Amino acid sequence: MTNCNMKKTFVGIDIGGTKLATVVADDSGKILSKVRRPTQAEKGPEYIIDLLFEMINETIVQAGLKQNAISAIGVSCGGPLDTKTGIVYSPPNLPGWNSFPLKARLESEYSIPVTIENDANACALAEYRFGGGKGYDAVLYMTMSTGIGGGIVLNGQVYHGANDSAGEVGHQILLPDGPLCGCGQRGCLESLCSGPAIARRAKEAIQKESNTMIFALADRQIESVKSEHVLEAALKNDPLALKLIDETAYYMGWGIANIVNILNPDIVLLGTIAIAAGDLLLVPIRKYVSSFAMARPAEVVKIMPAQLGDTLGDLAAIALVV
Amino acid sequence: MTNCNMKKTFVGIDIGGTKLATVVADDSGKILSKVRRPTQAEKGPEYIIDLLFEMINETIVQAGLKQNAISAIGVSCGGPLDTKTGIVYSPPNLPGWNSFPLKARLESEYSIPVTIENDANACALAEYRFGGGKGYDAVLYMTMSTGIGGGIVLNGQVYHGANDSAGEVGHQILLPDGPLCGCGQRGCLESLCSGPAIARRAKEAIQKESNTMIFALADRQIESVKSEHVLEAALKNDPLALKLIDETAYYMGWGIANIVNILNPDIVLLGTIAIAAGDLLLVPIRKYVSSFAMARPAEVVKIMPAQLGDTLGDLAAIALVV
Repeated sequence: MTNCNMKKTFVGIDIGGTKLATVVADDSGKILSKVRRPTQAEKGPEYIIDLLFEMINETIVQAGLKQNAISAIGVSCGGPLDTKTGIVYSPPNLPGWNSFPLKARLESEYSIPVTIENDANACALAEYRFGGGKGYDAVLYMTMSTGIGGGIVLNGQVYHGANDSAGEVGHQILLPDGPLCGCGQRGCLESLCSGPAIARRAKEAIQKESNTMIFALADRQIESVKSEHVLEAALKNDPLALKLIDETAYYMGWGIANIVNILNPDIVLLGTIAIAAGDLLLVPIRKYVSSFAMARPAEVVKIMPAQLGDTLGDLAAIALVV
Repeated sequence: MTNCNMKKTFVGIDIGGTKLATVVADDSGKILSKVRRPTQAEKGPEYIIDLLFEMINETIVQAGLKQNAISAIGVSCGGPLDTKTGIVYSPPNLPGWNSFPLKARLESEYSIPVTIENDANACALAEYRFGGGKGYDAVLYMTMSTGIGGGIVLNGQVYHGANDSAGEVGHQILLPDGPLCGCGQRGCLESLCSGPAIARRAKEAIQKESNTMIFALADRQIESVKSEHVLEAALKNDPLALKLIDETAYYMGWGIANIVNILNPDIVLLGTIAIAAGDLLLVPIRKYVSSFAMARPAEVVKIMPAQLGDTLGDLAAIALVV
């Protein structure tokens, strides 16, 4: 006899460059158990896959379940990767993962369906299923952290594009003669608005004018200046910090406006730095989007902080399989 | 008894600012008859709708059909418009069309389904169904003519976005301090690469250096310089014309690269000026797209001329209903 109240349960795996996490969750997105370990990325994929098997088994036991209670496994991982074949190419943060058949390895171990997805897309889907994107047909998620990544969810599905490369919103080029980006180009949105980019602009400004709270917050060590110091100083009305935040909002607003004109999303959800900064950054970003985008798509789009906060990483992998 | 060889037939309507066209076509896209008239846009929507009824009836008779042989009507029209309600708002080229219920008026006259779509989207769908986009899941069509419009077809359907405004690729801003665009912004792709924009850049250059074939082709009348003269002179290796073409390709390549990073299309089909210019423009556009876009989406995308040529306008409306 089937117990109709019994919810399906899933394993979610989050593979980052510095940490691994495995969770067991039910189909409402409720996390039942969680295990974390350092990635030790330098040990390569075989070490990591064995560690993941261990972690998965431990997470299932912690949830008080048996392996046969798990319906599917979702994996959120740095790209590039192929969602159809489940092969992970060479993510910059995972050395040695050259065409590693991650999906096949997990499926042969557990004999249940495995879905792999790049982390920004998985986060976008989690925001759609459980967070700020719920109920919208065209959702853009953009993270603002070490880099600027993005994921697009259309009609409830991750939009992958021709070869799983859609949503690289951080590499839109705004200033072809601008600062060098990690991707090799100059003046990408990421090279202007990521955490390290904000810190770099702050350092350059402090070298001209060191009378700013940002410098004090970094213990007057120029190399210690971080985007967090800029946010903190701006919240206390430090003029240089406010100028740096306005510049950041200008570039973000310009870049988002271009995407709004092309994609006409219902909502743009901004992660990490935008969550930490809140209205300090969101209010001027909205102003610049309105001034740069066409009237019709600008009038409909909501620019909001992502809502899942600390649980986003855990729910990203789960969102792929519920 | 149903005749299985009998193809379904459709009416297509193309509403432009200067001319109206009605066609009857079968489901393979074969045009059976066609009627054209000047729009006389200044007479307003009531005049035009009555003229369209006359033209539709005439086109059906010309095709040797009766009204009850027509299965549906497709309409390609300048936007903004709402594809769900079938209301046309205020297209810049159709004065007086303030919330005109075009779909409802046609449906009440003919009692068959009517689909309306903005012209760039309809052209994109026509290229997908009958032209260069056939067989591709992610197709971007961009026209380069008086303006730069665009349409996105994903999995065989026009992608509309939140309020039918998706695909405004011409209003991506590249140079916020650049030339004024018709949309009110500065430095949109359209303000740099449309026909009038190419002519404007040519005129500016000729004022500094009039020893160019472009000026001769325009009978040495600066106000007569057109983008066609630039193309013609470039095909004859005129140095200034080649420089203007390279600049155009640079901006187009930059703009397309940004879209390629966001949308990861299989193919980008370029209309009008790009068709006329052929490899002269396409080869450097491809080069700039490769240099500006990320490696993975750049390696998959094809940049090609649109294929339907003169029949594009006729097939645009038909593509909506076949």
